Amino acid sequence: MTKKVAVLGAGSWGSVLANVLDENGHEVALWTYKSAQADEINHQHTNSKYIQDLRFSDSLHATTDLQEALHDADVILFVVPTKAVREVAVQVCDILRATNQAPLLVHASKGLELKTYKRISEIIAEEIPAGYNQGIVALSGPSHAEEVAHHDLTLITAASEDLELAKQVQDLFMNDYLRIYTNTDLIGVELGAAFKNIIALGAGALHGLGYGDDAKAALMTRGLAEISRLGVAFGADPLTFIGLSGVGDLIVTCTSVHSRNWRAGDQLGAGKKLPDVIADMGMVIEGINTCKAAYELAAQKQIEMPITNAIYNVLYQKADIKEEIGNLMTRQGKSEATAQTF
Amino acid sequence: MTKKVAVLGAGSWGSVLANVLDENGHEVALWTYKSAQADEINHQHTNSKYIQDLRFSDSLHATTDLQEALHDADVILFVVPTKAVREVAVQVCDILRATNQAPLLVHASKGLELKTYKRISEIIAEEIPAGYNQGIVALSGPSHAEEVAHHDLTLITAASEDLELAKQVQDLFMNDYLRIYTNTDLIGVELGAAFKNIIALGAGALHGLGYGDDAKAALMTRGLAEISRLGVAFGADPLTFIGLSGVGDLIVTCTSVHSRNWRAGDQLGAGKKLPDVIADMGMVIEGINTCKAAYELAAQKQIEMPITNAIYNVLYQKADIKEEIGNLMTRQGKSEATAQTF
Repeated sequence: MTKKVAVLGAGSWGSVLANVLDENGHEVALWTYKSAQADEINHQHTNSKYIQDLRFSDSLHATTDLQEALHDADVILFVVPTKAVREVAVQVCDILRATNQAPLLVHASKGLELKTYKRISEIIAEEIPAGYNQGIVALSGPSHAEEVAHHDLTLITAASEDLELAKQVQDLFMNDYLRIYTNTDLIGVELGAAFKNIIALGAGALHGLGYGDDAKAALMTRGLAEISRLGVAFGADPLTFIGLSGVGDLIVTCTSVHSRNWRAGDQLGAGKKLPDVIADMGMVIEGINTCKAAYELAAQKQIEMPITNAIYNVLYQKADIKEEIGNLMTRQGKSEATAQTF
Repeated sequence: MTKKVAVLGAGSWGSVLANVLDENGHEVALWTYKSAQADEINHQHTNSKYIQDLRFSDSLHATTDLQEALHDADVILFVVPTKAVREVAVQVCDILRATNQAPLLVHASKGLELKTYKRISEIIAEEIPAGYNQGIVALSGPSHAEEVAHHDLTLITAASEDLELAKQVQDLFMNDYLRIYTNTDLIGVELGAAFKNIIALGAGALHGLGYGDDAKAALMTRGLAEISRLGVAFGADPLTFIGLSGVGDLIVTCTSVHSRNWRAGDQLGAGKKLPDVIADMGMVIEGINTCKAAYELAAQKQIEMPITNAIYNVLYQKADIKEEIGNLMTRQGKSEATAQTF
């Protein structure tokens, strides 16, 4: 059944997901606050600054008018940066109240709110209360926007506490190049998506320091174990971390040179100073903030996170990266079970 | 405490593990059936055909005489190919009976026995009965012999049903470049080590076909889910598959061009015929046999293994690889939970 979907955010992932929905026969309004970008999408059917090689169909409409985008929407898909989610949700709620709409809310953002360390669905739920939505679903998993644009094969997860809502989102997006799995562990999916960036920083650092494949695989495995432990302390199912939004996304992020977090870690490992890395990157490196969040959340819950602690010490306490690695390797021998069984 | 260890098998991994034990201060006898190889190790302190850049210490002794290797051994480490394990175990047992020894048995082989589909520890236990051993421990995890030889950082697992034995092996091998975790899920560790080669074949095939990072991460994640399901049907703990011998080893095998199984899959994906791939490789491609084992074991236990089935169809039923991928992508939508929770 054709749905009316408002896609909020016309970055690379928002554009590609809007295009998937359009190709699947849905009616799509793509909202951006940049009028030049909306014009390019509407008239040239491209969004060249954010995604190469994607040509939108004539039916996909972009607008800078949020009210127009939300008009009669069955579904709202948030694909704005983490730091913009709350502000956009506030604006969306004002419109929903005025029009008395209650659409299904979906988001495809990854991260935790600065300072509050809240998950994206928590932020949205706070700003768009029950009565103005059908529920919230998170889309997450190993996905490069470019590969989905090229109809390469991609598998992602639609997560909601309400399985029926996750199934609606599965139906909305699934086709022969994008396969959607449902998951009812919303907490685990959102936390995995956020925390994996810490491990990507670490994997990049090992590469920058000249370590090999064994060290990378070890870091990813033990990193996964410790972010699972933290997730479980906040209500996640440990098995979610073995899924697409957990290990799947971790693999893509840690083995692709396109990952910002991996590249930042690589430069740190090669000896570059943190302020220079941040300045040169010119974009938010989510893992740096998420590492602080995880460090503080772990302290709160008394969860052992040796890798996160080591990265925190390097990023925030000017610790020597090689010394931290030495400390990790020479800790007392552990059991995988006690280290892992949450 | 210094132990006397007999290392059986002087391939790359056996040589490197023998060297680790020697560096850790243990007394090591390295057994090989090739006298030229034993001579090279004893006189030139190298094993150049199997491992570059490794120089053994003068104290490490190689021998072609199994009885001499086993003399007074506290520990026997089997590092022979899967297909040779039973035959070597029979010979070992004859000697242990004659000398009335009962050493600790450790193995670092990965695979299942042809036809019987038995795990390595099962084969060893059948041929060396209680009374002639202290128990059996498996060593497994993401490890390139070359990287361990270079003192790069590596983390692996020592698994035994008896935690105390696993701890003994941890103490034996652990140092500042090789960190050992214990695990009591021997079944899960051994099955993960064997089954991961199926997924490596698949990951290689996707690469050969030109698919990208998303598809690889998806295959690895869903592959891990299905080999976990099969493992659980045979008594494994699902969380073992998220550990070093599971996802850790899978990451190394699927992201390294050095993996034989990955390379075989890559060539199949690029259109080469199976007999040519096997002939050109000139070595056993474990994943081809393990795929048949998993396919038949899954049928026995009625476990859904769509990826293994697809690879089986390509390897053994002349199915078209692209058609199989199309079938995988267009199956009915699934939940990660039902697909994963074993």
